Amino acid sequence: MIIDCHGHYTTTPPQHQAFRDAQLARLADPSLPVPRPERISDDEIRDSVENHQLKVLRRRGGDFMLFSPKASGMEHHVTDPATARAWATAGNDLVHRVATLFPAHFAAVCQLPQTPGGDLAGSVAELRRCVEELGFVGCNLNPDPSGGHWTSPPLTDPYWFPLYEAMSELGVPAMVHVSSSCNPAFHTLGAHYLNADTSVFAQLMGGAELFARFPALRFVIPHGGGAVPYHWGRYRGLAMREGRPDPAELLRENVFFDTCVYHQPGIDLLHRVIGADNLLFASEMLGAVRGADPATGIEWDDTKAYVDGLKLTDEEYAKVFEGNARRVYPRLDARLTAEGR
Amino acid sequence: MIIDCHGHYTTTPPQHQAFRDAQLARLADPSLPVPRPERISDDEIRDSVENHQLKVLRRRGGDFMLFSPKASGMEHHVTDPATARAWATAGNDLVHRVATLFPAHFAAVCQLPQTPGGDLAGSVAELRRCVEELGFVGCNLNPDPSGGHWTSPPLTDPYWFPLYEAMSELGVPAMVHVSSSCNPAFHTLGAHYLNADTSVFAQLMGGAELFARFPALRFVIPHGGGAVPYHWGRYRGLAMREGRPDPAELLRENVFFDTCVYHQPGIDLLHRVIGADNLLFASEMLGAVRGADPATGIEWDDTKAYVDGLKLTDEEYAKVFEGNARRVYPRLDARLTAEGR
Repeated sequence: MIIDCHGHYTTTPPQHQAFRDAQLARLADPSLPVPRPERISDDEIRDSVENHQLKVLRRRGGDFMLFSPKASGMEHHVTDPATARAWATAGNDLVHRVATLFPAHFAAVCQLPQTPGGDLAGSVAELRRCVEELGFVGCNLNPDPSGGHWTSPPLTDPYWFPLYEAMSELGVPAMVHVSSSCNPAFHTLGAHYLNADTSVFAQLMGGAELFARFPALRFVIPHGGGAVPYHWGRYRGLAMREGRPDPAELLRENVFFDTCVYHQPGIDLLHRVIGADNLLFASEMLGAVRGADPATGIEWDDTKAYVDGLKLTDEEYAKVFEGNARRVYPRLDARLTAEGR
Repeated sequence: MIIDCHGHYTTTPPQHQAFRDAQLARLADPSLPVPRPERISDDEIRDSVENHQLKVLRRRGGDFMLFSPKASGMEHHVTDPATARAWATAGNDLVHRVATLFPAHFAAVCQLPQTPGGDLAGSVAELRRCVEELGFVGCNLNPDPSGGHWTSPPLTDPYWFPLYEAMSELGVPAMVHVSSSCNPAFHTLGAHYLNADTSVFAQLMGGAELFARFPALRFVIPHGGGAVPYHWGRYRGLAMREGRPDPAELLRENVFFDTCVYHQPGIDLLHRVIGADNLLFASEMLGAVRGADPATGIEWDDTKAYVDGLKLTDEEYAKVFEGNARRVYPRLDARLTAEGR
């Protein structure tokens, strides 16, 4: 079984963006009525997924996808908490409907209603709703809700602990994922996403106390860990210089990387450096890059082609394609096990 | 001949930091007298270099180093322009003395007196002084003088053009290099440096007009290009999606990467993806990482060991170790040629 742990609902029916537009219009003009999500039919949802993510998943030989609201659309930089809550709720309800319509192929991962510097009570409440009432198996955590101004404390700071307590209790991990950049210095897809991955790993290098306090806390760092595996020697040397444990210690049970690296040399390095025990197969397909490399004919985000190119052992493939995802997302494992899969 | 294009004077005699401390004290208490750099003897400078950078350079088989003030010490976030000018002048004068005392082994690269959002007239003046009066061969350009708040426009913005005009006229490149992070979200050496490299490359992906206007403008992106070579497929895919030229176009005459990647798998990927024509040998030794990998016995920043491990052809080695540096830094080439080297 091949599980893609990183998919976003980038193809929502247009009513969803219309709701967002109405939210933003009302923030600009408070005399407008509070908008509500427009009705979207099951058929519209089916069409939006069957002809896109599901079609591509099947064509590439995948079986299952963890599915969350569009990352660039989370827009946590909008500071109004009520707006953030309504927007996260609408997005999560939609991915829940996808998971309900296609239970053989999707499980849902939630967006949190974060705001820059805002308290995390709303995020904890939405996480509980999604996991306890709707069967979600994980969440996306934005380490920079400001959208490129980086005004939040590092992920080792007690600011984040209410969320970690809930994650630990519920048994769900977080994928660390920023949203759109509001800073012209950072291209959203070409810099901000990768910088976040890199920055968070460096934050977690100082996380020995954090993981002692929350031993079951698990983070998936997407996009192949940003710059980290490429600079693994730098991180090992820095850890030694600062008297910290080797960064490989983080990788035992707490930090994992996905395989969203869009060429063979990158995937080769990722596996060579990190090994199979902490890699989760993922494509983020229909995301940052579209189309195929004219030199090879391989679609940029067809990461299965690159992972196949690794020529792993069967045991390693079982970990990267399935086992690690079931280990990191135990609620996914419980559900699949109950289904006899 | 082996040229290390990325060295910083991280071992200055203590008087230099004392001058900085006095500057900062006076900013806190303007009743204090304006400090002046304390006297440092030639012997003190010789000792500080012979027992550190020069000793290591020789031991590792290197011949020559481009030498600039300590990057983390530039501290461009201090907003007072007069302080920035005096600090850059003092640091540049010191690296000039190193280059004068050891002309067979060092050429100088200057720090610019940037401030967050400040106009670049002072930077242009200091660049001219260093190049025209003191024989410097390049400069370090900080794309984020705020120190991790990223308040400056992208490097494609006309804000930077006065500097580019001077660089083009003088025939000197810039190494893109930030200084210390003032933002707790960004570890200086584990995130901020790499994020800057990544962010600037993404900025320059939109730089076709910039390089059409300044065809001789050359940037060296240090630390192996941050996350860029590891994610080269992502950049190629993004360029295609955005209708821009393939990023390889940037690499012809305008953008170069150094080899400050501190393990063999990273250097292997760098060469595999970027090729020998746009790589400049560099170590940034006595910089971010100190000591040796206990698993291999290789000092972390002994990048020559990793580059040797590439098993390149003689022609490729000639480019990476020498030819590319002489191409990117034509004033270095002119000087070495005049010396019959």
